[in-house]
Amino acid sequence: MKRTAFFVSDGTGITAEAIGHSLLSQFDKIELQMTTKPYINTVEKAQQLVQQVNEAAEKDGLRPLVFETIVNQEISNTLKQCNGFIINIFSTFLSSLEAELDTKATGSVGKTHSISNSYVDRIDAINFALDNDDGSRTRFYDRADIILIGASRTGKTPSCLYMAMQYGIRAANYPLTEDDLESRKLPEPLRDHKRKLFGLTIDVDRLVAIRNERRSNSKYASYAQCQYEIQEVEALFQRENIPFVNSTHFSVEEIAAKILATQNVTRRF
Amino acid sequence: MKRTAFFVSDGTGITAEAIGHSLLSQFDKIELQMTTKPYINTVEKAQQLVQQVNEAAEKDGLRPLVFETIVNQEISNTLKQCNGFIINIFSTFLSSLEAELDTKATGSVGKTHSISNSYVDRIDAINFALDNDDGSRTRFYDRADIILIGASRTGKTPSCLYMAMQYGIRAANYPLTEDDLESRKLPEPLRDHKRKLFGLTIDVDRLVAIRNERRSNSKYASYAQCQYEIQEVEALFQRENIPFVNSTHFSVEEIAAKILATQNVTRRF
Repeated sequence: MKRTAFFVSDGTGITAEAIGHSLLSQFDKIELQMTTKPYINTVEKAQQLVQQVNEAAEKDGLRPLVFETIVNQEISNTLKQCNGFIINIFSTFLSSLEAELDTKATGSVGKTHSISNSYVDRIDAINFALDNDDGSRTRFYDRADIILIGASRTGKTPSCLYMAMQYGIRAANYPLTEDDLESRKLPEPLRDHKRKLFGLTIDVDRLVAIRNERRSNSKYASYAQCQYEIQEVEALFQRENIPFVNSTHFSVEEIAAKILATQNVTRRF
Repeated sequence: MKRTAFFVSDGTGITAEAIGHSLLSQFDKIELQMTTKPYINTVEKAQQLVQQVNEAAEKDGLRPLVFETIVNQEISNTLKQCNGFIINIFSTFLSSLEAELDTKATGSVGKTHSISNSYVDRIDAINFALDNDDGSRTRFYDRADIILIGASRTGKTPSCLYMAMQYGIRAANYPLTEDDLESRKLPEPLRDHKRKLFGLTIDVDRLVAIRNERRSNSKYASYAQCQYEIQEVEALFQRENIPFVNSTHFSVEEIAAKILATQNVTRRF
């Protein structure tokens, strides 16, 4: 039997989704149909949603789970009339926070992700990551907060973009090529920035699979080549004392969090 | 008087931060020093954190706020001994969810962001956004889930990357140039994909400011040029019935959520 879960918000729904996913991941036996409902910011929209929840309840034969982060009391109360199991993330904590802070909540919506100074930092950081991707440009490394290095296709670009997007960090990346590895030295453009370097490595099998998707049956994607590169890259990281992480079992969020926990990088937001 | 807020997790800390930020944005008069503590996944790390919380309490003369999403009961109980005001996001809802679902929580950590099928979708989507950025390539538009169009510097690239990263959506983008606008027709590569098009526009003042940062005092960044382009772009959107959003007051999260709410795009996760 499938149950429906709704993530409901008066804003983007990102917070409702994040907490809902986290909680539901603790119940991996339960089959779920998940759906996000952002911008439920009027009583009317809430009334329509009540109908949808009730329809799902009828169809499933089970109360839907409704994770909601609606700030406005009237809209939240409207939603409460549905035939679902409501997890009201906001109001559950808000009154105890009001007591602790001895302050009334403002009741305004969606401040978290609204435009602020961080907007410019973020766009700057994204542009920096794009402009300094894949070793394309090395002369701005003094402006970089961090420089990711590793063999081709080990997750450098997505990690840089994520750090830019989520934290406003200016992250460049430099691919260690076969020439770099044969010299057994740190490439010249990286030498002056040793403290900014962070390495990525990956399991050989995984790298073979990823490279085969790009260029199947090439030398580049061969097991021998991937094994050689990974061996040499890891040896280089160890010789030069560069902190590194194996990206095989981690998402970009996790890689970014690990880098932040290791390196002395200042987040811009 | 400043208060310290800790966002504590046994994983990346992203959920603790998101809900903490949302709640605290309701108290805009309170001055806060915010700090994220990811990977608190051993009792020892929790003990160290208890010390840090207690030091902040002493320094501030106020109990720190501790938003935590730790799954492991022993680690969470260790943290509970600190001299802070604890908002335990997980366990608050977990027991009522267990009752509703009539199932015990598994107690395992960090499933939300762990590697899964969505990993490949996400990397694919990011590569798609990078490869089909800024009109660089138009022949893969039949593979696109969505194509963002608009004048130069209206937020197309960050929005595409965000949709790729957050939802695994394959988003291309195409800049409407002066030539395109003078012809007063939809550019040829877009005509076969009309249902995939979504427009971005922006306030003229904002566009002038952004373009001046890139190329100051150029014709490109002049008020007259920006005004002309925005006018023509919006006229085109209206003439062709292309849904669009003004990005001036929205973050990329908000733009992405609005696109998802308008277009019939399927998220991959």
